[in-house]
Amino acid sequence: MRGAVIHAPGDVRFETVDDPKIEKPTDAIIRTVVTCVCGSDLWPYRGLEPIGDPHPMGHEYVGVVEEVGSEVTAVRPGQFVVGSFATSDNTCANCRNGWQSHCLNRVFMGTCQAEYVRIPNAQGTLVATDEHPPEEMLPGLLAVSDVMGTGWYAALAAEVRPGGTAVVVGDGAVGLCGVIAAKEMGAERVIAMSRHEPRQRLAREFGATDIIDERGEEGVALVKEMTGGIGADSVLECVGTSQSMRQALHAARPGGNVGFVGVPHEVAVDGEELFHSHVALRGGPAPVRGYLPDLIDRVLAGHIDPGKVFDLTLPLAEVAEGYKAMDERRAIKTLLKP
Amino acid sequence: MRGAVIHAPGDVRFETVDDPKIEKPTDAIIRTVVTCVCGSDLWPYRGLEPIGDPHPMGHEYVGVVEEVGSEVTAVRPGQFVVGSFATSDNTCANCRNGWQSHCLNRVFMGTCQAEYVRIPNAQGTLVATDEHPPEEMLPGLLAVSDVMGTGWYAALAAEVRPGGTAVVVGDGAVGLCGVIAAKEMGAERVIAMSRHEPRQRLAREFGATDIIDERGEEGVALVKEMTGGIGADSVLECVGTSQSMRQALHAARPGGNVGFVGVPHEVAVDGEELFHSHVALRGGPAPVRGYLPDLIDRVLAGHIDPGKVFDLTLPLAEVAEGYKAMDERRAIKTLLKP
Repeated sequence: MRGAVIHAPGDVRFETVDDPKIEKPTDAIIRTVVTCVCGSDLWPYRGLEPIGDPHPMGHEYVGVVEEVGSEVTAVRPGQFVVGSFATSDNTCANCRNGWQSHCLNRVFMGTCQAEYVRIPNAQGTLVATDEHPPEEMLPGLLAVSDVMGTGWYAALAAEVRPGGTAVVVGDGAVGLCGVIAAKEMGAERVIAMSRHEPRQRLAREFGATDIIDERGEEGVALVKEMTGGIGADSVLECVGTSQSMRQALHAARPGGNVGFVGVPHEVAVDGEELFHSHVALRGGPAPVRGYLPDLIDRVLAGHIDPGKVFDLTLPLAEVAEGYKAMDERRAIKTLLKP
Repeated sequence: MRGAVIHAPGDVRFETVDDPKIEKPTDAIIRTVVTCVCGSDLWPYRGLEPIGDPHPMGHEYVGVVEEVGSEVTAVRPGQFVVGSFATSDNTCANCRNGWQSHCLNRVFMGTCQAEYVRIPNAQGTLVATDEHPPEEMLPGLLAVSDVMGTGWYAALAAEVRPGGTAVVVGDGAVGLCGVIAAKEMGAERVIAMSRHEPRQRLAREFGATDIIDERGEEGVALVKEMTGGIGADSVLECVGTSQSMRQALHAARPGGNVGFVGVPHEVAVDGEELFHSHVALRGGPAPVRGYLPDLIDRVLAGHIDPGKVFDLTLPLAEVAEGYKAMDERRAIKTLLKP
């Protein structure tokens, strides 16, 4: 089969790779229906994370089951399935506690920008839809497998409540999905921090009531102005830099909550400052598996449309251009069709 | 009047100081019934925090109202009152959100090891009991004004739930009160980390089901052993060092909560490690005022007895010995009687 392989920073190639095979009785093989490029894929692409030997890329997917291992009974060949970027057996102590992305048998996906994909822990990871969804639902369902699920978790970790105020730091696909999540959870005011016009427009479409295009302490000052001087109840940190984390912590009110889902790169939180702020902090890879049934329903019912974060669609064979467009900020997120 | 004044590390004196006076219409003056020495008073006493000019000490108190300012109507002269170490108007946005220790008009107490004390924000800060409590209730009510309220907050911040497992890091008065709180909130298992026999005994009396006397990663390994390999649902961090914070974070399970109430001294939390742990972190000075009515009731009903943390009682005139005994760990906590 063919799939994307990263060789060096800026060098992603579409080439022939080994066909995936059932390796364990808990595996499944799916034929990829659509996949995409993630903001986090840009870290190695930009040379900000080591690459090592050339290796496949991609962790977002929806597909049709081709084959299942002997212990997989929850899905069967021919079904359309959505899964999470972090596979989980859905039976271990962490899964039972609702932390499937911390499954004791977790395997992170990493080969999904390809025509076929092996899914470890398929029994606990994959959720089948009743029917094959129509073409126009595919982007939304694909978003659910990572960015929408991650935005959802950010809002939960930030304890968004009906009637509350939520701030979203970061206007990438995850931040934009965070706006959807905050709105769905009943936030009365959803403030998106974004300085890019097309993303501001999408944020408003997704439910943002206010846009702040100032950054850092200037942006924080505006949040305070909008919140009676004290800050927001909930802040979703969707970037992962030291600056964005500071901005998020400062934008939250005393007793408020920051949910952080941008993978932190050289972020240190000062214990004394956190103490005196009274702000709570929770982050991590989102336990998307737990939200899949609900989020799939919301997409299929037409209630949310996170697929709009894909503003560029390319054949999988043009995956290199997909990375390039996101790197150069010509695209928010690239959808790839095998 | 007379009161304690710190002059230099190790040098606390009982001397004549100015009588407190009503300075604002929101003030009250109380005659101190009992007061005490706090673990945090030891930081300047040990030379670990700057002292500057000689100044009064003490932030824990119960007393009888002597005089009130013109805007104070909630308490009247002659009433027995309990207050918090952080005064609050109980009407500002932060107070209404339940974060009285972040009141926009907050004044931290600091002159309570004295015969009389001025209480700012008296209207929102002081809670009167129906009657003057009997002598034997005084230590418990005094504990409520800080250490018991702080232990209570630690358990709330750590989201202790009925049936859950709570670990308490630190066996000072706050940690021991944290054991009481975790038990009251229904934790099925309360694991106290302590290596001092008298404190272990008190922890058991307060409801600890298990004692771990190993520290650091060895202690963490034992917590994991007791919790099916994953860690505790809730961890109360009641020390404030970099080592104790690491121990607390590592003892919590994925998705668990750490409540930290030891004032952090040179503690930095690694963002990436916190991210991958899925642990939530909330700390700060406890909003004790909000808990006062409930905790006073629990003490007066004989339901909890946090006064047992006082294992040394001295006349206020011997305050210097009170500090010395705690510094040398001959006492857990010193109660002082004017």
